[in-house]
Amino acid sequence: MSLDRAYAEALDAADPLARYRERFLLSDPALIYLNGNSLGALPLATLRRMETVYQQEWGTALARSWDHWVDLPARAGDLVGGLIGAAPGQVTVTDNTTVNLYKLATAALDARPGRPVIVTDHDNFPSDRYVLAGLAAQRGAELRMLATDIDEGVHPDLVRAAVDEDTALVSLSHVAYRSGALADMAAITGIVHQAGALMLWDLCHSAGAVPVDLDGCDVDLAVGCTYKYLNAGPGAPAFAYVSARLREVLRQPIWGWFSQRDQFAMGPSYDPAPGMAKFMTGTPSIPGTAAVEEGARLLLEAGVEPMRAKSMRLTAYLIELADAWLVPLGCTVATPRDASRRGGHVSFCHPEAERIVARLAEQGVITDYRTPDRFRFGLPALTTRFTDAWDAAQAARDLIAESFSGERYVSHG
Amino acid sequence: MSLDRAYAEALDAADPLARYRERFLLSDPALIYLNGNSLGALPLATLRRMETVYQQEWGTALARSWDHWVDLPARAGDLVGGLIGAAPGQVTVTDNTTVNLYKLATAALDARPGRPVIVTDHDNFPSDRYVLAGLAAQRGAELRMLATDIDEGVHPDLVRAAVDEDTALVSLSHVAYRSGALADMAAITGIVHQAGALMLWDLCHSAGAVPVDLDGCDVDLAVGCTYKYLNAGPGAPAFAYVSARLREVLRQPIWGWFSQRDQFAMGPSYDPAPGMAKFMTGTPSIPGTAAVEEGARLLLEAGVEPMRAKSMRLTAYLIELADAWLVPLGCTVATPRDASRRGGHVSFCHPEAERIVARLAEQGVITDYRTPDRFRFGLPALTTRFTDAWDAAQAARDLIAESFSGERYVSHG
Repeated sequence: MSLDRAYAEALDAADPLARYRERFLLSDPALIYLNGNSLGALPLATLRRMETVYQQEWGTALARSWDHWVDLPARAGDLVGGLIGAAPGQVTVTDNTTVNLYKLATAALDARPGRPVIVTDHDNFPSDRYVLAGLAAQRGAELRMLATDIDEGVHPDLVRAAVDEDTALVSLSHVAYRSGALADMAAITGIVHQAGALMLWDLCHSAGAVPVDLDGCDVDLAVGCTYKYLNAGPGAPAFAYVSARLREVLRQPIWGWFSQRDQFAMGPSYDPAPGMAKFMTGTPSIPGTAAVEEGARLLLEAGVEPMRAKSMRLTAYLIELADAWLVPLGCTVATPRDASRRGGHVSFCHPEAERIVARLAEQGVITDYRTPDRFRFGLPALTTRFTDAWDAAQAARDLIAESFSGERYVSHG
Repeated sequence: MSLDRAYAEALDAADPLARYRERFLLSDPALIYLNGNSLGALPLATLRRMETVYQQEWGTALARSWDHWVDLPARAGDLVGGLIGAAPGQVTVTDNTTVNLYKLATAALDARPGRPVIVTDHDNFPSDRYVLAGLAAQRGAELRMLATDIDEGVHPDLVRAAVDEDTALVSLSHVAYRSGALADMAAITGIVHQAGALMLWDLCHSAGAVPVDLDGCDVDLAVGCTYKYLNAGPGAPAFAYVSARLREVLRQPIWGWFSQRDQFAMGPSYDPAPGMAKFMTGTPSIPGTAAVEEGARLLLEAGVEPMRAKSMRLTAYLIELADAWLVPLGCTVATPRDASRRGGHVSFCHPEAERIVARLAEQGVITDYRTPDRFRFGLPALTTRFTDAWDAAQAARDLIAESFSGERYVSHG
């Protein structure tokens, strides 16, 4: 490879997914947006769909629209299922990731009485750790924390050493939010099942970014957000997956009217609905769920495998640029170098990461900062050009060389 | 009063709030929409705001918008607080009503250890009854059901007879979803406090419809939806109120990252945020919360007292028309006749209520059906004309006279 921008331009010209960028608003041509792993871009189809949802469905048809809205969470769930290896009927779109985690983790504990241990890792996303800690406190259970290497992610051996006949639930992120390390879903799920525990995967940073095969890996439970790689907008509802093996057996703790069999009979007693509706709570966001449908549809059209192929090339290219330009300035690569072991974002360590992110933003290069000393470049396949990676790496190089290099900035990471 | 349509037209001409109807989309002039108690109409300001939220804030500024989005639930909460008698800092907008009920009811039980009883009424909204039943099952608590008269609502004497030193929590709806009966918030809250229990009000059918004075009634906890009288759209996030007396003491069970102190430090342990943020969970819907802000702002501009004055006149007028036209055809009025004892909707009993609602809808008169034999006319003050009440009552009269009257249709209600 060459370090010239012309090389990046040639990669863009040969990119079979390049035309998908035109399907998003991205109206500021000067903006280098490498933060789609935090908030994905706005699909033009979603903008059109929102006009229909607001003006026609809500504004004009009003409450009559509930006739077709009522099945929207299931329809959107099946589309998301197509991106994460879930056959129809196992995914619904409802609430946010935190609430879904709480519901499914509680259901898992109830399904494994006499097993007082929940396992997660110390670098799992904060909401995951906090929800599990709250649940452990509520139940008098123990929350066992795997001491993962935060750059390399969760190794199956760590899980094997931590689970036993006391373990009810193991809950991990498929792609680590800081490093982008991709966990071995099949191996870890198998280890957890051998111990007789249930496995709950958080797919926030992997759904839409890497191929996920929930059914193929025999996963029990999964949750994930839709505002990152699924491009459903800020605070759009999250998804929940429950394997068909367990769907009719498990019970979740928040007994709302959208989880009730024959909801509009409004009967005297709670009787959980069949299928994934049981894992809903109250009235779901209709515009948000419609946006999930549009986002998922766009990704399905592009195809998970082509997106993954481009994503691996993009992240590899960025790492090569970083090795040439950023590592000599005191940055370290804080993401696995083996493309098959990482997701759609790349992290770097630098003691001034927070200021680097702020200064890059002033120049229109949007990345993000994660404690204590990481800055992340998110490279969603449908919206990121190779030239974006080049421009961002060059901007980081110039900035760090000018303002943040020298003896006192050598990374301790 | 006269039964002529001209009389309704005169009332509209004299209505000081009449001009507010132009602030909503309501684009079909032939539609008689009396179902705003299920889904409120779309404010034009919300349509404009959504353009900004989608195109500018999400589509163009992207993740940078979190700088001002992060405080949106608190800002929207304070606006809603202005409609329900809550001083700033006691309301947030988050999740849906079901999830908020679950969180606050759990917090209440935790705050009253050794008291194993929750009280509600058998005609409370299904989600309320189911959530409390689930919580009781989880805690081994007893759910005590008040045998309310479903048309007259919850009488304070019933509550007095049901609460004792075993009661942790009483949870009731301020306005009954079926009959529209308005409970005596001050008296009931006082009775509950005398027993040492906590009081949680569901304001779904009262926020924006009747004056509510949470602080003045010394209420502990309240929840409510925003898609009815607050016009925030289908599945818009709900609100939660926790009295400043209890806000720093109570803990809710779903420990998400939006309820964490210093959220972006992403620290190792959960440490609940001060203020109402503690009662949030994960990432809130931004378009939905912005729509709550717009809806609440419009109602605050019109004023709770003027809306209530019009609402009482509207419901009284509809009841007078019903006495003249519907009662002789076998309907009964299933809403308190004293205007100070009802909210913003009026219900009627008829054994063929479900078919009446369906047939009226075919004629463009949108009302709704509630089991077993009620049909409801919702009359939000800002979008309902006296002529709408007249047109709907006349359409119901003609329909029932033609298709549903006679011996076998006399109501048993």
